[in-house]
Amino acid sequence: MSVPIIKSPRAMRQWTFEQRCAGRTVGLVPTMGGLHEGHASLMRESVSCNDVSVLSIFVNPAQFAPHEDFDRYPRTFEADLALAEGIGIDAVYAPTSSSMYGQDFASYLTVERVQDGLCGGSRPHFFRGVATVVTKLFNAVLPHRAYFGQKDAQQCAVIKRMVRDLDFDIEVVELPIVRDADGLALSSRNQYLSSAERLEALNLSKALARGLELMQRGERDIRRIEEAVRAELADLDIDYVAVVDADSIEPLAVAQGNVLLAAAAHVGATRLIDNVKYTFPESAADGFPRADSRKREYAISAK
Amino acid sequence: MSVPIIKSPRAMRQWTFEQRCAGRTVGLVPTMGGLHEGHASLMRESVSCNDVSVLSIFVNPAQFAPHEDFDRYPRTFEADLALAEGIGIDAVYAPTSSSMYGQDFASYLTVERVQDGLCGGSRPHFFRGVATVVTKLFNAVLPHRAYFGQKDAQQCAVIKRMVRDLDFDIEVVELPIVRDADGLALSSRNQYLSSAERLEALNLSKALARGLELMQRGERDIRRIEEAVRAELADLDIDYVAVVDADSIEPLAVAQGNVLLAAAAHVGATRLIDNVKYTFPESAADGFPRADSRKREYAISAK
Repeated sequence: MSVPIIKSPRAMRQWTFEQRCAGRTVGLVPTMGGLHEGHASLMRESVSCNDVSVLSIFVNPAQFAPHEDFDRYPRTFEADLALAEGIGIDAVYAPTSSSMYGQDFASYLTVERVQDGLCGGSRPHFFRGVATVVTKLFNAVLPHRAYFGQKDAQQCAVIKRMVRDLDFDIEVVELPIVRDADGLALSSRNQYLSSAERLEALNLSKALARGLELMQRGERDIRRIEEAVRAELADLDIDYVAVVDADSIEPLAVAQGNVLLAAAAHVGATRLIDNVKYTFPESAADGFPRADSRKREYAISAK
Repeated sequence: MSVPIIKSPRAMRQWTFEQRCAGRTVGLVPTMGGLHEGHASLMRESVSCNDVSVLSIFVNPAQFAPHEDFDRYPRTFEADLALAEGIGIDAVYAPTSSSMYGQDFASYLTVERVQDGLCGGSRPHFFRGVATVVTKLFNAVLPHRAYFGQKDAQQCAVIKRMVRDLDFDIEVVELPIVRDADGLALSSRNQYLSSAERLEALNLSKALARGLELMQRGERDIRRIEEAVRAELADLDIDYVAVVDADSIEPLAVAQGNVLLAAAAHVGATRLIDNVKYTFPESAADGFPRADSRKREYAISAK
């Protein structure tokens, strides 16, 4: 009756090969547990788009720095199982820490450039840890599709690039941020906030909404967008506010194409992240910098 | 009649899933072409131990430095195909360079420590390139077993560690070095040697045989073993001579357990590598350094 809990990569792979060889598609929702409505939206999408769906629960030590919150990260295994079963998840992959990182563990995935800015700047080994554990999860579950939330937009970009580069035959599906009614992006770490801090934390989504509004009104000056967001965040301990290319996570000279506006800030002892995405219309304004660079090219070649 | 040549990861994976879902085991022999009797021994073993076998041929740009021999590396595709067919290979995976390393390629595998010494010292990005391309080949072919030659002993160690760490469900099989009658280890790069150089190159296997003889006679002093090998190599431009742990490729204080004695040297413009492995018997001598370090520990704690 209850959902099977699979502990080892080998048992997981046996399960998934049985599904695949029976012609079924397999969806994977990788999580660190502490499930909330954001994870639920990923699970529902996986259940509706695949014949069978796997939820993985593993609090990954490789993506926490020694001073970070690995020890107190929310572990709510029984509640997570109940939520997953209710949604129709077919198997839970919950490997142990010792089976995931054995003695002399030495193999790491890096996704150059995509992992460097934003959260990669303040958490230097974070995306190496993420890319490595996701590789391990992919190798164990061999899913057709894997589901991630836009809340971790840079993580999505890292994983999409890694999947493309390393020939994983997996469709990475990124789903929208789920927010509370007051706008706060859902996060397992919201549990850490006192009610006063929770009120303060609302500034993050409000500030990003202000930045989005500017972009929608045609603002393409990155400094101006970032400063407007920073102004709204004045009371918080800002980690970063940045407008970057949404796919490469690389800096832009001017806002154009698919843009990610992302911010991280500390509210008390809790680090929160949030973001909005916006696609600029290909308008006359887009032509400006290109026309400009053509002119410069001409000037150079005419010398 | 002739062996199918598969060009894309997706087509490769489709082929392999058909095999796996029909209950067949899949062997993979990854090569850069330029096949010789060493590769043939890998293919024969794969054919005899698996229901179907894949030969991959891809000269991997990511494992060559700009000044190295990527451009002139032997490319003998038609002869390689004929050899593979004769041995009973069932499919050849021969992806194109542009499909393997697309624009903005950014994802690399590193296997810390194991990749650092020996060839990793003189070719800093070599094993990163190897581990990355092997990950791509594994993801495309999804084999049950993969075959590598001991000639590239450090490469074998890197790949075994990576497979264990990242939960690839693949048995890595390492087969002995195949040598010419005069002792020279077979290598695609032997084609570069003039007949005078070929004679010089024999010193490499002779010197390693001398080191092996010393170890077999009980020599455990690493400096003495390495110096004896270096003395025999006097005329060659030595890159390294090293005795290391055969699994971790890390330095040893004293020769014990599974040992790799490896050397690299330039003969004219050609860089050659060769090695021998030896397992020391667990004898009284093994106890010496341990007793020693216990004594030191005692001295420190007695302060």
